[in-house]
Amino acid sequence: MIPSLALGVLTGSHDTIDEMKSVPEALATGLAIELMKIGQLILLLISLLAPVTAQQTTSAQPPQLNLMPVPASIQFGSGRLPITSTFQVGTRNYSDARLVSAINRMMARLAGRTGITFTPTAATNESQVTLLIDCAAPGKTIPSLDENESYQLSVSDARAQLTAATVVGALRGLETFLQLVNGDASGFYLPAVKIQDQPRFPWRGLLIDVARHYEPMEVLKRNLDAMAAVKLNVFHWHLTENQGFRIESKKFPKLHGMGSDGLFYTQDQAREIIAYAAERGIRVMPEFDMPGHSTAWLVGYPELGSLPGPYEIERHAGIFDPALNPTREQVYKFLDTFIGEMAALFPDAYMHIGGDENEGKQWDKNPEIQAFMKEKGIKDNHALQAYFNQRMLKILQKHKKKMVGWDEILQPGLPPDAVIQSWRGPTALAEGARKGYDGILSNGYYIDLMYPASQHYVADPIPANSTLTPAEAKHVLGGEATMWGEYVSAETIDSRIWPRTAAIAERLWSPREVTDIDDMYRRLGVISVQLEELGLTHEKNPEMLLRRLAGTNEIGPLVTMVSLLEPVKEYRRGQERPSTMLSPLTGLVDAAQADSEAARRLSRQVEAMLSEAPQLRTVAVRQTLIEWRETVPRLYLLLAQAPALTEAKPLADDFAEITAIGLEAVDYLTNGAAPTAQWRDDKLARLEQAAKPKAALEFANIRSIKLLVIAASELPSRQQLSPADWKARVKALANQSAK
Amino acid sequence: MIPSLALGVLTGSHDTIDEMKSVPEALATGLAIELMKIGQLILLLISLLAPVTAQQTTSAQPPQLNLMPVPASIQFGSGRLPITSTFQVGTRNYSDARLVSAINRMMARLAGRTGITFTPTAATNESQVTLLIDCAAPGKTIPSLDENESYQLSVSDARAQLTAATVVGALRGLETFLQLVNGDASGFYLPAVKIQDQPRFPWRGLLIDVARHYEPMEVLKRNLDAMAAVKLNVFHWHLTENQGFRIESKKFPKLHGMGSDGLFYTQDQAREIIAYAAERGIRVMPEFDMPGHSTAWLVGYPELGSLPGPYEIERHAGIFDPALNPTREQVYKFLDTFIGEMAALFPDAYMHIGGDENEGKQWDKNPEIQAFMKEKGIKDNHALQAYFNQRMLKILQKHKKKMVGWDEILQPGLPPDAVIQSWRGPTALAEGARKGYDGILSNGYYIDLMYPASQHYVADPIPANSTLTPAEAKHVLGGEATMWGEYVSAETIDSRIWPRTAAIAERLWSPREVTDIDDMYRRLGVISVQLEELGLTHEKNPEMLLRRLAGTNEIGPLVTMVSLLEPVKEYRRGQERPSTMLSPLTGLVDAAQADSEAARRLSRQVEAMLSEAPQLRTVAVRQTLIEWRETVPRLYLLLAQAPALTEAKPLADDFAEITAIGLEAVDYLTNGAAPTAQWRDDKLARLEQAAKPKAALEFANIRSIKLLVIAASELPSRQQLSPADWKARVKALANQSAK
Repeated sequence: MIPSLALGVLTGSHDTIDEMKSVPEALATGLAIELMKIGQLILLLISLLAPVTAQQTTSAQPPQLNLMPVPASIQFGSGRLPITSTFQVGTRNYSDARLVSAINRMMARLAGRTGITFTPTAATNESQVTLLIDCAAPGKTIPSLDENESYQLSVSDARAQLTAATVVGALRGLETFLQLVNGDASGFYLPAVKIQDQPRFPWRGLLIDVARHYEPMEVLKRNLDAMAAVKLNVFHWHLTENQGFRIESKKFPKLHGMGSDGLFYTQDQAREIIAYAAERGIRVMPEFDMPGHSTAWLVGYPELGSLPGPYEIERHAGIFDPALNPTREQVYKFLDTFIGEMAALFPDAYMHIGGDENEGKQWDKNPEIQAFMKEKGIKDNHALQAYFNQRMLKILQKHKKKMVGWDEILQPGLPPDAVIQSWRGPTALAEGARKGYDGILSNGYYIDLMYPASQHYVADPIPANSTLTPAEAKHVLGGEATMWGEYVSAETIDSRIWPRTAAIAERLWSPREVTDIDDMYRRLGVISVQLEELGLTHEKNPEMLLRRLAGTNEIGPLVTMVSLLEPVKEYRRGQERPSTMLSPLTGLVDAAQADSEAARRLSRQVEAMLSEAPQLRTVAVRQTLIEWRETVPRLYLLLAQAPALTEAKPLADDFAEITAIGLEAVDYLTNGAAPTAQWRDDKLARLEQAAKPKAALEFANIRSIKLLVIAASELPSRQQLSPADWKARVKALANQSAK
Repeated sequence: MIPSLALGVLTGSHDTIDEMKSVPEALATGLAIELMKIGQLILLLISLLAPVTAQQTTSAQPPQLNLMPVPASIQFGSGRLPITSTFQVGTRNYSDARLVSAINRMMARLAGRTGITFTPTAATNESQVTLLIDCAAPGKTIPSLDENESYQLSVSDARAQLTAATVVGALRGLETFLQLVNGDASGFYLPAVKIQDQPRFPWRGLLIDVARHYEPMEVLKRNLDAMAAVKLNVFHWHLTENQGFRIESKKFPKLHGMGSDGLFYTQDQAREIIAYAAERGIRVMPEFDMPGHSTAWLVGYPELGSLPGPYEIERHAGIFDPALNPTREQVYKFLDTFIGEMAALFPDAYMHIGGDENEGKQWDKNPEIQAFMKEKGIKDNHALQAYFNQRMLKILQKHKKKMVGWDEILQPGLPPDAVIQSWRGPTALAEGARKGYDGILSNGYYIDLMYPASQHYVADPIPANSTLTPAEAKHVLGGEATMWGEYVSAETIDSRIWPRTAAIAERLWSPREVTDIDDMYRRLGVISVQLEELGLTHEKNPEMLLRRLAGTNEIGPLVTMVSLLEPVKEYRRGQERPSTMLSPLTGLVDAAQADSEAARRLSRQVEAMLSEAPQLRTVAVRQTLIEWRETVPRLYLLLAQAPALTEAKPLADDFAEITAIGLEAVDYLTNGAAPTAQWRDDKLARLEQAAKPKAALEFANIRSIKLLVIAASELPSRQQLSPADWKARVKALANQSAK
């Protein structure tokens, strides 16, 4: 029975190319669609497709696009360009080694994804070429803020053409090309489209803090590949911190020699990273955080500090007192030499000097500094830091670098070509822009805080309600996701950056109007799997950690529970589960992801159920909950044998309770009989208990279960209310009970 | 209900340390057990533990050891050494940077596995030390065949002591120490034991062919780490082939320059690998395969060939004609220079010159070679190759290297210090040993042929029935697993090497009497998860490939089917699924593993069911089959949307049929009613059909399903036969039907 049903599916799915050409006319016949409408269009496409049933998979489908970031403008044509073993790439006009390497990388990924063996013969004329790349010029020698990254990509059923002013534009277009590859029962193809694309913002960065925890070269490289895949173009390399000084200084070898536990990048390695990034059209901006965040400098050179020391590498997370002494000329001499050395190493036009979170406690304690301030009329520590910044500015200018710093550098006298990186938010950014300062937004993009992608996605460097004039708005250069390193290792960092950072990348590249969260998540799922082609471990390492903790590869029940757990948000991890920089990052919290897909799925099921009328169809929700319940006994068995999972036991108790409560509520909803008020209060109280973090983890499905409990309790009111009103009432009550 | 059951489990599992000290006296009170009996002991331990129920997990357990390879001798004590945050390692007598690095690596793995933050303060005296390492000497400067790798490890409830004559012995002991770490509800600990250990064979190798497919540096490094973890000590680096010349030659830069597609190791990188291996007590023996297997040499230097060329890098798998010209003095001059360069680069005492599979077809075609043979009285191509070997031998001797080659080098005149690597088998090896030649076994250890670990495990360099005298047996130095590279990429190679090679490592290290296959598989499962600590991807990449093929991370049904599929054995892949060296290695066959754990589990369930009397308890088998059946509809949906999985569709049909047949058979067995002969014949015929390879894959569960069908058909005879006789009859009939 089952195979023949399936055979029906399979045999029915051939020879549909002609049908596919006749997909709805409104979509397929060259209708030009402004990007503002793309979100809606994609939604329409999804609604046409969903729910996917065996029947529908065999019928003609309009192309479902998985582009991320969404391009500036897209126009659908008719037909499709098949991908076969004769696929060939050719170039016209300008080409160089960087472009050829990018083509080769693209072809390897295309082969890996499709399983096709491409024959590497060079096409002798353009008519043999499947993808023609028409590139005008190499672009900047050193990747630059004013690089032209635009491209046009046109796909017909005969060939594709990628046109770009620079190789960097071509690289961006090649990533779009790969994302356009689609497939069905007839094989792989690209849908006929015309894409015109350029970024909304020129500065689209990812900060990686390699100072709290060192990251090996291959981690940086694969993340550069992933950045390129989603069109990010600035690698902000946070190299120094209280907890580590990670770059070799030949002028002052005790910086890395005593400040890094031997875990630093040699200058050759830094050049390797810079070259690797440049190959992908990515700038590398180093950050040397000062005057605070500088303990690791002082281990080797305590004389730079504001108190005599000695200093040790900081092993904890937090804000610490050590700060460079801004009153000693010797410090500026040292920094002049050091910045000169780094300016020669890092070719980017910008250099980041940090400037954040110095509370000046060491300055308060040093009488010489106090005397200096009195003498110079410097009224407080802010003013003293402004003095320091002015001195640093001159040093950077001497070495031909533009200065970048965190919000705190915005002080009177800041020169107009400085860039402010805002951890404070769009308002602070706008304030700077009004004063004429360039700025980049990081507030809202702190991926270390473990918020879901949806939250980052709505953070906009220039929100829709911005009152900036067009001229002022030009000062908002873009933004950066920040991967602060307190709780990431080489094993976990990919899963903290990806896939969520792809949503931020879209925010920074795509038009502001691209804001559909459901569609973002749908595409994020596809892109996430594609990112694995680049060696990223975000999809695979979480289960590896669970196997390690369990000591076995039979971890099904644990995977189910952890799929519903998210690490605590903000800075609560350090409070909930104290650790140091020397602690292993292999706990349950390290295996959990920031953005529970399983909880989102339950939430969709519950929302759909609540919206139904007149009958509540509880089947899907019940099925999900039953699957969870079935794992519980096996979960306990697993935990009983794994001491590294001791902290999972209270969570397992909560998991079992949450699931049981949900099923009870579904029983009431199915039967149409409301529970007692006592039942509701008991269950809500138990859910409150379960909502408390344990092992620095929180269940992400509790809100949905709470909705079920309230909905069951509100069954009597359902008679009097419309389905929509009833659903609204249930949600309001659930929100209320959360307070 | 469920949580309180579980709470019972959890609360009942504390304070059992005292009980644990009173585990069966026979096991725990210092009973010295010769290794010959270890296998049985472990089995006894398992039988005491299984089936694991919630009740039993809370009761006192004797230590279940997961050592691999099993040590030469082990003696159990009473008590346990807890692992806590105060754990400290100290050294006595000799220590050096190599030992300290190994300790640090061990501590990082211990922390990662246990989640414990260890405080890195140096112990000031031995009484504070938890693990004391007493090492006498550094060992050989260059890792050597006659290295002393023995160690003693003694664990009491107060401390552990590791004693070794050399740092290499200490490294081996540190791996055993980590494997001894165990845990239960009271935490992590080591059981009290006294281990005395040394290898059975001094040459325990892994060949990695980086020539057919290049492997990046990090792949080699993580595999060296894994080798060290299972006490392998020779990395046989197969560097040259028809398909690639992978080592930089400064003397002859066209070798790698034209023979490698740019994918080669620089000499600096080779030194990096050699140093990395030496840090782990591993020798690096390079192989330069000649006179055959040499196409890639001839691309840059066609004048070395036996026909004029030109030559291109070979893109196919197989045996090819190109061979060096053994009659030209210029060739020997070239080889003298090249070998001299390589001898300076690779410090190992041995160098491998291949010598295999040259059929001499080019020699036959070259009149000058024919004339030379006539003139010198060389009667055939074998004799000509012997002549070549003699010349090579002199070159190797000049550069102070001992020669290693494949079976074919065993020709009259081979010097006594040459080593023969046998792809032919133990008989050929013994033949060499009788003639006084050292040999290493590779026949039986060809891991590229996709046989299960159990098959490699029974291959013994000196089988129990060997007639070699002790003096002759000494010439059998050990063996090597061979990872030939036709079908491995950086993404898949780990899963082809591991975990199976750990079983070969055990064969080469442990006493011959350690042969329990079930226990080997049990320990292999544990070791496999531990190997992931070293960055190996064997557990995680198969599902990554399936995600890529499916284009989604919702691959549950596909994982279920693929868990029952094994790549075709021997050299059939190339016939079943033609490809070239340029083909992507990302197909279903690349995601499938050689040794289906799921099929083994079904087999155990079926065997257990058939052994039961008087009632057949079909529940477990039925449950397994139902779980499979439930995945089938979702599997078809997945396949319908994934063109890269087109080749999986016939397999899905088979999977559905196999499962349905199995369930029908279980129905008969449950009801006690026999099916018709027609039914049996139909089902067996369908299973024969399903047993045929598709997409170069074979279902590993068909034998068990066939047993079910035959058992159902033989139900009438069950009345007349004892359960054991009936089971034997069923198995005999099933074997018969397989012919």
